Amino acid sequence: MTSEEDLLCINTMRFLATDAIDQAKSGHPGAPLGASPIAYTVWKYFLKHNPNNPKWFNRDRFVLSCGHASMLLYSLLHLTGYDVSLDDIKNFRQWGSKTPGHPEYGITPGVETTTGPLGQGFATAVGMAIAEKHLAARFNLNGYDIIDHYTYVLCSDGDLMEGISSEAASLAGHLGLGHLIYLYDSNDISIEGSTNITFTEDIKKRFESCDFQVIGPIDGNDVEAIKDAIKLAQSDEAHPSIIICKTAIGFGSPNKQGKASSHGEPLGLEETILTKKALGWPTTDRFFVPEEAAKAMDAKVIGAKAEAAWEMLLRIYRAEFKEKGAELDALINGDIDQSYKDALAAIPNNDCATREASGAAINAAAPIIKELMGGSADLGPSCKTAIKNEKDFSKETPVGRNIHFGIREHAMGAIANGMALHGGIIPFVSTFMMFYDYMRSSVRLSALMGQRVIYVYTHDSIGLGEDGPTHQPIEQLIGMRSVPNLIVIRPCDAAETVSAWNYAINRTDGPTALVLSRQKLPALSHDAGIELINKGAYIAKDCDGNPDVLILATGSEVKLALDAQDKLAADGIKARVISMPSWELFEKQDAAYKESILPKEIKKRISIEAGSTIGWAKYVGDEGVSIGIDHFGASAPASELFKQFGITSDAVIEAAKKMK
Amino acid sequence: MTSEEDLLCINTMRFLATDAIDQAKSGHPGAPLGASPIAYTVWKYFLKHNPNNPKWFNRDRFVLSCGHASMLLYSLLHLTGYDVSLDDIKNFRQWGSKTPGHPEYGITPGVETTTGPLGQGFATAVGMAIAEKHLAARFNLNGYDIIDHYTYVLCSDGDLMEGISSEAASLAGHLGLGHLIYLYDSNDISIEGSTNITFTEDIKKRFESCDFQVIGPIDGNDVEAIKDAIKLAQSDEAHPSIIICKTAIGFGSPNKQGKASSHGEPLGLEETILTKKALGWPTTDRFFVPEEAAKAMDAKVIGAKAEAAWEMLLRIYRAEFKEKGAELDALINGDIDQSYKDALAAIPNNDCATREASGAAINAAAPIIKELMGGSADLGPSCKTAIKNEKDFSKETPVGRNIHFGIREHAMGAIANGMALHGGIIPFVSTFMMFYDYMRSSVRLSALMGQRVIYVYTHDSIGLGEDGPTHQPIEQLIGMRSVPNLIVIRPCDAAETVSAWNYAINRTDGPTALVLSRQKLPALSHDAGIELINKGAYIAKDCDGNPDVLILATGSEVKLALDAQDKLAADGIKARVISMPSWELFEKQDAAYKESILPKEIKKRISIEAGSTIGWAKYVGDEGVSIGIDHFGASAPASELFKQFGITSDAVIEAAKKMK
Repeated sequence: MTSEEDLLCINTMRFLATDAIDQAKSGHPGAPLGASPIAYTVWKYFLKHNPNNPKWFNRDRFVLSCGHASMLLYSLLHLTGYDVSLDDIKNFRQWGSKTPGHPEYGITPGVETTTGPLGQGFATAVGMAIAEKHLAARFNLNGYDIIDHYTYVLCSDGDLMEGISSEAASLAGHLGLGHLIYLYDSNDISIEGSTNITFTEDIKKRFESCDFQVIGPIDGNDVEAIKDAIKLAQSDEAHPSIIICKTAIGFGSPNKQGKASSHGEPLGLEETILTKKALGWPTTDRFFVPEEAAKAMDAKVIGAKAEAAWEMLLRIYRAEFKEKGAELDALINGDIDQSYKDALAAIPNNDCATREASGAAINAAAPIIKELMGGSADLGPSCKTAIKNEKDFSKETPVGRNIHFGIREHAMGAIANGMALHGGIIPFVSTFMMFYDYMRSSVRLSALMGQRVIYVYTHDSIGLGEDGPTHQPIEQLIGMRSVPNLIVIRPCDAAETVSAWNYAINRTDGPTALVLSRQKLPALSHDAGIELINKGAYIAKDCDGNPDVLILATGSEVKLALDAQDKLAADGIKARVISMPSWELFEKQDAAYKESILPKEIKKRISIEAGSTIGWAKYVGDEGVSIGIDHFGASAPASELFKQFGITSDAVIEAAKKMK
Repeated sequence: MTSEEDLLCINTMRFLATDAIDQAKSGHPGAPLGASPIAYTVWKYFLKHNPNNPKWFNRDRFVLSCGHASMLLYSLLHLTGYDVSLDDIKNFRQWGSKTPGHPEYGITPGVETTTGPLGQGFATAVGMAIAEKHLAARFNLNGYDIIDHYTYVLCSDGDLMEGISSEAASLAGHLGLGHLIYLYDSNDISIEGSTNITFTEDIKKRFESCDFQVIGPIDGNDVEAIKDAIKLAQSDEAHPSIIICKTAIGFGSPNKQGKASSHGEPLGLEETILTKKALGWPTTDRFFVPEEAAKAMDAKVIGAKAEAAWEMLLRIYRAEFKEKGAELDALINGDIDQSYKDALAAIPNNDCATREASGAAINAAAPIIKELMGGSADLGPSCKTAIKNEKDFSKETPVGRNIHFGIREHAMGAIANGMALHGGIIPFVSTFMMFYDYMRSSVRLSALMGQRVIYVYTHDSIGLGEDGPTHQPIEQLIGMRSVPNLIVIRPCDAAETVSAWNYAINRTDGPTALVLSRQKLPALSHDAGIELINKGAYIAKDCDGNPDVLILATGSEVKLALDAQDKLAADGIKARVISMPSWELFEKQDAAYKESILPKEIKKRISIEAGSTIGWAKYVGDEGVSIGIDHFGASAPASELFKQFGITSDAVIEAAKKMK
């Protein structure tokens, strides 16, 4: 059953969507027409939120995983009272508007995460639910449920076809995330036609196999049925739920309902009018919002009350639990105890693999920064990402901060995004560098959303040896460097690694990727302390007088450069060695600093890095030489590979002498 | 039950593995110890193969999806009679050996596909089974089952955790691939410990939800039980099967059985001796192969007979079905009807989106090259990859050549690899360029294995407009360019697109990525015919006399360069415009050709491309300028975005004038 008022509101959403899409001459009307009743029911009858404060910490999160249905979300934001005006909606998909083609975090108040690449929202929501469960376990004391909210997700056939959603569901079910509720807009249509042509899974069985509560199928047009289903979902605190809602894509459109053609192109004015007529909607005004609908959907008052009640609870909580209250406040405000820097600075610069140094950094910082929480895609013992003396985050001990993600890199990245977006958590996640390839889409979204996610990538080159070319990164480093707003740091020793961790923790406007060695690296001497790598490149060791040649290196190759420098000096060639752990940070420096490191008049330049040489030409210039690996690796002991592939100090020496 | 002879053979395999791993001081003994009975049973009692001809077309395929168990496979190859000697096994994981750390296609005879990155083998096998089913439907006439083989896969917990295996299983079940049989080595252990800590799916339900026949759990140490299960799997022609085999990782090792520590490091000599003792194995000789085991496992005679019988059948087939026989021979030999070039050459160079031109090329070539088979990850109508007048490949019509992959990019790439590896198929697969990010690992394997897979990536830049930054490639182009052995072509018009297709079809030693526009592009005039793009870069339009400036452009930006050239000419600046659709092909040219296009003495150079500028410095040099986009895109009409982001002919003109 759907009441008249409900239907009025739903149709208001539907036609705001079609009108905006017609106006933009671009967009996806099918999902808003079909799934508006679902989203409406969540927002009207369940969602705890305050349109006046989209950042209220204990709000329910709503994720539109099928991001192409963006107009559905914008309609909700407008109608419930967020700072999204009717003019914003009329500007759908235009330059500089608040209403881009797919929902973008940071652009539109109330948008919890950027979606569009299918499956990402589905998995990101798992991260939000993990954050909620963990923080609840840490802060909810004596019946004060200070952290207590749901994460709702509207998802589509496309989300469920993507492998990332299987990974995420498997973990969500394993962890028993009872506050996570998926509403599956099951409309049996994808772009190439009926889902019958390729997607015929038994969805109920699939999610049962992952220990979900599966509800439905229900009629996705029936508000009462959706309400009942959500109540049922909420009643099971021990399992995530998925509600299968049967809907019709392009609902109401006489010529497009149930057809793939309604998915990704405007109905067009004519068909929109036919649809309005079919659903009994006035056809004279576009962007029509009936007063009753506006009134019924306005959530500003009820939202403000809800937040005020929580603030009241928080005040009592603070009074009763002084320390925890202060901890929670700091966490909500993002205030980090800066003494972690001292703890990092105290780590000695010993000879060790940089992954080991990274493990030391995590374990120095984690006792101070309780926000640090993370783990690995089943490579914790190799990536050295376990926080010692901390429990695992699990059903039984949600207070734990070590997460076993399983061999699910793609979901891991998205889950990290969800944890960061939720707030109160600084997530770090790890795998072998090669498997960055499995999670590129999630890392890209960290960067696009400007989220503080720390990616720990170990086994960063042929230096891993025998596992061979499937495990040896070649193009992964340049791959990371090319992602806008991703800071990539490849440290050469423990000191640079610790400094990299310092940078990554401090950074609040985007993700950082730490690229670490499997093999032991010698400690080099530095005097720049904890901010050693902050400028991206520095003179690791200079020569006496003006250099004849500049040698640029990163990570494990810095030592090779230093060895070459010594031998060249013996032959009367003066070389400056530049450690360049981060291109992106170096690019942020002013011209004077850059010139002080890489003087324009010194044209003889050599770079050495055990990976693709692409991009180095910018730094070595027309007369320079880049030593690297522009082919796949091979299976053999690491020392053999460095020799065979010419990543040696001898290669640097030879190049330098040739230039002379 | 396991007979004494079986056990002798199995233990031979087990200890060849542990001895080789100990010798290499590196490797993964846990899986060979645990799963040898499973693989042994397949090879001994079921696998139709001929060690003397690893390329026999109608052999059964065996995929070791858990590639870290490589020694298990090398033991089988050695013992059954492939060209893998005991010395090769002693050289496990050494430079130049036939026995790399993970199985590598092309290095070791009998290795059907490169594995190691988890889940890839699982999905690649689906491609092999699709190829088999399709070719069987095309060639099996009147009871002559000339194409009729199984694809067996040994897979592990890790394979099943990766999302790619869910995608692949969903499609395999949907397609009813009855000749596809998975043996799941379920040992309840992954690197971080018991699978209980993160992987608690109900596997039976999961695969039932994908319409698999699920068999077991059975005792993975019981050869008779495994035989019965495989027979049951074979008996169901309508569904893929998965046999759940319960095993113990590190079986037999007194101190490591059932423990994660047996997974990824050598047992060590001491523990190996204890294990040998525990399993009643002589401890004196290493690499011990009992004569009875050698005899029992030698498959050379039986293999030769099997192939001879098939050759006989083929001779009869050829006699009875002349045309089909010739077609099959050509297909097996990889002989392509070269008249497709004429069909391509006949495509007019009209103004159109390059995705449209690509669709025309597919449809010109497909009637001639029956090996072409492919489709899209639910974006066929946008990527223009449907072969007209061809059926869909489906349960009902396996003879069809259009595949609906569903929104499963990662599996799609691996499936394409499997089809190419099987032989007889030239696969092409498509999605939006952005979603290359979802499938990078599979594309990398195409390149590493040198497989002819044609990747069609459309919507190649901000030119897609309103869908916004989640859909607009920025770093994807340089991402592709950095993959060794992947040829990337971004054509500027229909003629270049057709030429790119010609190149991609002709290439037999690796994959090609075609990077295509959503938006219409004007036809430019060329006179190089079908091989237009083969040199990677050429002078699109020269100036009179020596150029003052070189303008390099690709794809949609070539027209901007030409516009700038005209306007610069009016201002007395002579510019040469170079269309550079493929860096990789240009790099293959000799120095003289490169110099003829990019004369060293001309230092004033400008590149323009609507994507990351990384890497262009190599071509524009120290004094050059690269116009591109080093930040994320935005949601707005395409024309607005080109203007806002400065990807315009005016930007080129300004840069040229500044250089003057």
